[in-house]
Amino acid sequence: MAQTFMTTDTSRNTALADAFTRVRDHTEALSAALSPEDQVIQSMADTSPAKWHRAHTTWFFEQFVLNPQSPGYVPYDPSFSFLFNSYYEAVGARHPRATRGLVTRPNASEVARYRAHVDDAMRTLLADPDTADRLDELVTLGLHHEQQHQELLVTDMLHAFAQNPLAWINGGLAVLPGWEPLPNAAGPTRFLERVGGLVGIGHTGDGFGFDNEFPRHHQVLHPHALANRLVRNSEWLEFMHDGGYRTSKLWMSDGWEQAKRDALDAPMHWRPDGEGGWLTVSPAGLAPVDPSQPVRHVSWYEADAFARWADARLPTECELEAASDELPEFFGHVWQWTNSAYLAYPRFRAQEGAIGEYNGKFMINQMVLRGSSSATPPGHHRASYRNFFQPEKRWQVTGLRLARDL
Amino acid sequence: MAQTFMTTDTSRNTALADAFTRVRDHTEALSAALSPEDQVIQSMADTSPAKWHRAHTTWFFEQFVLNPQSPGYVPYDPSFSFLFNSYYEAVGARHPRATRGLVTRPNASEVARYRAHVDDAMRTLLADPDTADRLDELVTLGLHHEQQHQELLVTDMLHAFAQNPLAWINGGLAVLPGWEPLPNAAGPTRFLERVGGLVGIGHTGDGFGFDNEFPRHHQVLHPHALANRLVRNSEWLEFMHDGGYRTSKLWMSDGWEQAKRDALDAPMHWRPDGEGGWLTVSPAGLAPVDPSQPVRHVSWYEADAFARWADARLPTECELEAASDELPEFFGHVWQWTNSAYLAYPRFRAQEGAIGEYNGKFMINQMVLRGSSSATPPGHHRASYRNFFQPEKRWQVTGLRLARDL
Amino acid sequence: MAQTFMTTDTSRNTALADAFTRVRDHTEALSAALSPEDQVIQSMADTSPAKWHRAHTTWFFEQFVLNPQSPGYVPYDPSFSFLFNSYYEAVGARHPRATRGLVTRPNASEVARYRAHVDDAMRTLLADPDTADRLDELVTLGLHHEQQHQELLVTDMLHAFAQNPLAWINGGLAVLPGWEPLPNAAGPTRFLERVGGLVGIGHTGDGFGFDNEFPRHHQVLHPHALANRLVRNSEWLEFMHDGGYRTSKLWMSDGWEQAKRDALDAPMHWRPDGEGGWLTVSPAGLAPVDPSQPVRHVSWYEADAFARWADARLPTECELEAASDELPEFFGHVWQWTNSAYLAYPRFRAQEGAIGEYNGKFMINQMVLRGSSSATPPGHHRASYRNFFQPEKRWQVTGLRLARDL
Amino acid sequence: MAQTFMTTDTSRNTALADAFTRVRDHTEALSAALSPEDQVIQSMADTSPAKWHRAHTTWFFEQFVLNPQSPGYVPYDPSFSFLFNSYYEAVGARHPRATRGLVTRPNASEVARYRAHVDDAMRTLLADPDTADRLDELVTLGLHHEQQHQELLVTDMLHAFAQNPLAWINGGLAVLPGWEPLPNAAGPTRFLERVGGLVGIGHTGDGFGFDNEFPRHHQVLHPHALANRLVRNSEWLEFMHDGGYRTSKLWMSDGWEQAKRDALDAPMHWRPDGEGGWLTVSPAGLAPVDPSQPVRHVSWYEADAFARWADARLPTECELEAASDELPEFFGHVWQWTNSAYLAYPRFRAQEGAIGEYNGKFMINQMVLRGSSSATPPGHHRASYRNFFQPEKRWQVTGLRLARDL
Repeated sequence: MAQTFMTTDTSRNTALADAFTRVRDHTEALSAALSPEDQVIQSMADTSPAKWHRAHTTWFFEQFVLNPQSPGYVPYDPSFSFLFNSYYEAVGARHPRATRGLVTRPNASEVARYRAHVDDAMRTLLADPDTADRLDELVTLGLHHEQQHQELLVTDMLHAFAQNPLAWINGGLAVLPGWEPLPNAAGPTRFLERVGGLVGIGHTGDGFGFDNEFPRHHQVLHPHALANRLVRNSEWLEFMHDGGYRTSKLWMSDGWEQAKRDALDAPMHWRPDGEGGWLTVSPAGLAPVDPSQPVRHVSWYEADAFARWADARLPTECELEAASDELPEFFGHVWQWTNSAYLAYPRFRAQEGAIGEYNGKFMINQMVLRGSSSATPPGHHRASYRNFFQPEKRWQVTGLRLARDL
Repeated sequence: MAQTFMTTDTSRNTALADAFTRVRDHTEALSAALSPEDQVIQSMADTSPAKWHRAHTTWFFEQFVLNPQSPGYVPYDPSFSFLFNSYYEAVGARHPRATRGLVTRPNASEVARYRAHVDDAMRTLLADPDTADRLDELVTLGLHHEQQHQELLVTDMLHAFAQNPLAWINGGLAVLPGWEPLPNAAGPTRFLERVGGLVGIGHTGDGFGFDNEFPRHHQVLHPHALANRLVRNSEWLEFMHDGGYRTSKLWMSDGWEQAKRDALDAPMHWRPDGEGGWLTVSPAGLAPVDPSQPVRHVSWYEADAFARWADARLPTECELEAASDELPEFFGHVWQWTNSAYLAYPRFRAQEGAIGEYNGKFMINQMVLRGSSSATPPGHHRASYRNFFQPEKRWQVTGLRLARDL
Repeated sequence: MAQTFMTTDTSRNTALADAFTRVRDHTEALSAALSPEDQVIQSMADTSPAKWHRAHTTWFFEQFVLNPQSPGYVPYDPSFSFLFNSYYEAVGARHPRATRGLVTRPNASEVARYRAHVDDAMRTLLADPDTADRLDELVTLGLHHEQQHQELLVTDMLHAFAQNPLAWINGGLAVLPGWEPLPNAAGPTRFLERVGGLVGIGHTGDGFGFDNEFPRHHQVLHPHALANRLVRNSEWLEFMHDGGYRTSKLWMSDGWEQAKRDALDAPMHWRPDGEGGWLTVSPAGLAPVDPSQPVRHVSWYEADAFARWADARLPTECELEAASDELPEFFGHVWQWTNSAYLAYPRFRAQEGAIGEYNGKFMINQMVLRGSSSATPPGHHRASYRNFFQPEKRWQVTGLRLARDL
Repeated sequence: MAQTFMTTDTSRNTALADAFTRVRDHTEALSAALSPEDQVIQSMADTSPAKWHRAHTTWFFEQFVLNPQSPGYVPYDPSFSFLFNSYYEAVGARHPRATRGLVTRPNASEVARYRAHVDDAMRTLLADPDTADRLDELVTLGLHHEQQHQELLVTDMLHAFAQNPLAWINGGLAVLPGWEPLPNAAGPTRFLERVGGLVGIGHTGDGFGFDNEFPRHHQVLHPHALANRLVRNSEWLEFMHDGGYRTSKLWMSDGWEQAKRDALDAPMHWRPDGEGGWLTVSPAGLAPVDPSQPVRHVSWYEADAFARWADARLPTECELEAASDELPEFFGHVWQWTNSAYLAYPRFRAQEGAIGEYNGKFMINQMVLRGSSSATPPGHHRASYRNFFQPEKRWQVTGLRLARDL
């Protein structure tokens, strides 16, 4: 899973146990305002039920920590291993992903009891300093894994609510941290010029990192410029008014096919307001599109077409990582699509065992996103972090920042 | 909806109000043991969520009785008309059927409040004898409509539970009336011989009937024989062991295509027990197939292939109706597939208005079933009753009785 | 295949041999103007290549006559049995129907040699009077089978040409017999009144009949009236202008789904002429729709919706058969959709062996058509003839005649 | 289309005219042994009919050279512009790609006449030295374009023949140049060690290159080793016997899904011989798999899984280009899958106008292949050549060479 998973200052077990409690509680806080009905449905094959996220993250600790490391641990229910494995082929048979929304039992209350059962066992285990030291890497990975699912829980529920013709959210996602609006951007976009040269890319080894951020290595950068801010809804509306969704030459061929097939004319979760304007579904419910906010829920295809329309291009992941310290609005708003395919870094090696399935087997057909979003849990971001999705996906909190050759 | 909807002895309003309460309460009793999670999911495009059935049957009274007939009635929520219309094109836009399972809000509790709101208004309306007389036909239709959905609620939930890999029913359908096992059949099947001739077919006009049971008319019957009982699981197992699912010449061409494509080897809801035997999912949970019980959850294709294997054929709806008084096991066990297409009777006319969409527009691509099943609500059966489904459907409580030419 | 297949006056072998030559030659005449390219393609899963029809009808004689009945006969190529079996499960494995258009070899010229090889062997066999007598039923069936494929060859090629954006037929179907326009109908449609009563239905036993026309039996007719002519394009244009394709209440539910999904707005093979009128593809090429001609290429759903719009209904097959002698325009123009499902007649029994797969296994999900069309070979029609297709099919030469209850 | 398209030594018009004749004639030679039937079919959505390739390459010269540059040129048939445009959105409407196989007319003979018409006009045009100089870049591009389609014509026809259950090729592809077997590899695979460092990548500007090979730029190489030969069928059979197609941990997640869904167990065009061995379809017909030859017709997923099984990895396109001079078996056998996504080189710019759609709009969802294959026309290869296909595609002549980190 990477050369090291040491968290910044958890050399002592109390820190690890505290982190455990903090992350686990945050998952429950995110789902506190969701009804049992909200938590069981799966609104498309890409998403998972909220209840499933809560159970699957718990299964991770049961499967990879408690079962092998805690003598005498009794699994809450042996059938859960089948129900809540996501994609670990090495661990055995699992429930088909597309039918996760058909499992009404165990229900949301029972999942809460499952979580409590595992949490108790984990806390007991981590109370021993030697054990905590020994399991630090693995438990830390489990917590970062759970944080990734916290973000998915939010985007999946947002998608589910958006399928309700009434977009009847009513506070269901109201507890979301960090979804506060960005301050209105002052002045026009400026492009920060960057000289080229050899740069070091990848995780420095300081603190936790996923295996796909390693090993650190050199790449060549060519002179370029990066926008000092994210693309705004106001700019996206200009693109729309200028016929962006109807102009084939702006689009990649595959993207144009999707745009025509699905009759795309706006970002996901946007709806006409019936008077020429647009509404959008957010954790706050259905509301008019705010021109001052960064555009969200666009695919790589849309982002790429917009960039071409703007006489610019998407940045590479290397360009963004190298400039991350200097770029405003880098973390906490929208994931930024890059023009980099999600591939292994030179000399990448996946970990041995089931944990090795975490990232490596997805390194095809996906594009890298950098930064982090308003749905990302607090603290779960790094300059070297590599998020990745297929270029047609739109349900994540995805936007863009422009780049240009110099 | 038929020339008359007079219920047998409800000339007085108290009888109608009593019937209203009895039917409405039965729906709630059926869903009492279902969790909120159980009630929201839709396990395939053919089925609907339990919560939706509860709301849609309520919408029927609001749309067709209260809105037009009760001055001053205030709809519970105007958006429900969009959400809970099933297929009445004349009534306006409606929520797409295949995505009923994506609507988490209103939730099960709110649907209960919706039902109470409408029930109160209905009871007030029916308290006036003149109004009750005037609305008798329409309210009676609404109650029979609700009884049809009671059966669907049961079969849809059974399908949903069967998708759970654990078939974890746990009493969720335990309140079902009439699902008691049939007494074991004594002796071999006998065939009751029937002379042919002209017979009167269709509703006699005495008591309620759906429009598709009218008008009564004559048909020619040819000499034939009908089995004195329903086909049993023991016989179905013989068919299976004899290669019935692998013998093309027993099958209609379309049925054989389905059998191969879906790799059918047993009725729906049957699962191998891992030791050469079979389990089945019923309202009582997952249990071994009981050889003495009638086979359930077979398609018309399967029933037809079985009949050919047994050197027999399916009866026509006319043959069954004419003999219904004399046939054992006719009501309350399984719907009996016939070899009759669901078409209009001679001189059939659908009612005017939206109510006219009730039956007529489905008179193509379906086969008639006669009798009634263990999921049919008490009292909701008649000799002239015409149930109908596409020949590939298997999730209803469907079986068969054999016939032979003489 | 029916109690008797005696052709009218073929008691002597020369008559049978003559019929054999006449039918076989007609197939070749139909394809004479087709290029090798025309003959190899399959324009949708329902159709077959022209070359395949020529080979399959030949295979029928090789498989069912020559191989079992002609000692010393050497099959032209043993692999052809696999390639050119249509749907006879009992005869062994066969090439998947949907990929018939991917077989470029044997090519059209080799199929001609295959036909000549089989024709020679057949003529030798039929030269012996005793053999001819013995094989009369089987060979006669083979010839009627080939005539059915002659009609399919025409409708399949018409569909293929219509897929060419240029509809470039250029005489490719010019040899078609009987595609001459109907004389313009004089005066308005009249309805011929018919009293009801018991009528005899089915083949009388005089001359050839397919098994599905037997046994003759009685049915009850109710008083009704039948139009004295087929529905014309002029009337269909009225239906279109009156919003027929946009009015849900005229349609069966399944038909309305198809109409919306496929955006239907006119019969198959009609194209807007760009100036508010319509063109249609016929064996004569692309030409304006002729208002005086019967409407063709409509599905059962369209025919049924039209009838409802015209305050009428489709006739039953029994009504048409009983009146066939008295109805103008009954044969040779368009097949007439009926409101009768294609089911077995009472006491129907399929023949033993592979030949028994001819009709029986298709007796579900189809509606009966009566009469015959301009694509039907000369002489291949009878009052008792039962054609059948699924209600959504449109590529046959299908139209309608109206009926009304009295 | 790139900074320069100067062919090596065609400064004089005769050289260009000669090249024109040579390339155009080669296309006709490739299709000379194909029947009209062979040339019209399209065996899957990815492929095109042979006749279409012959017409489309002709259309290129008519559309981009003759129409704009040859005053007085009369198009052969105005409708061909619609039929034979492949994907140039800027040029106008075009016939849908998936239905190219439904166009029987114009037939193969007429396409030959179309080619002659355009060839005559082109030769007249190129006879003028000044015109030839002016059009050199554009015509040269057209010829390289035609050479690409020559390879597709071969692989598409091979796929079409392979769909014929008899794999009845009979010399249809016998004229193929360069399909001679590779000499048997001597000794075990050796890995050539390569030091890392900055290397120049991309077209040097000397001779023709497609726009996607530009601009030349620097990349960082890390120490690695490259196999001295292509992977052989004998090795692939070992992979198969070792359960390679059934071992999930060897596969990318998307590849594993495809392998299970399509029940893959061998390269495309391989068939079991019924006795435990394998046959394969090649231009020579159906023959036993030759263990000494390079494996062909594997997807990127398969190549990637094989490399993991062999404790190796796929090379990057940069590694292959930098070593191309030193690697045996680099050109003329199989295209070599790389682990590089097909993306724009830094500072890439597509040409203006319709010609700019040539490469750029496909730079997503595809992986690069390097080298060239036995189906590549003579001379059509370069060290900097970037071929590209989606990772699931198998119908091209695709194999692999192993790489390892040092």
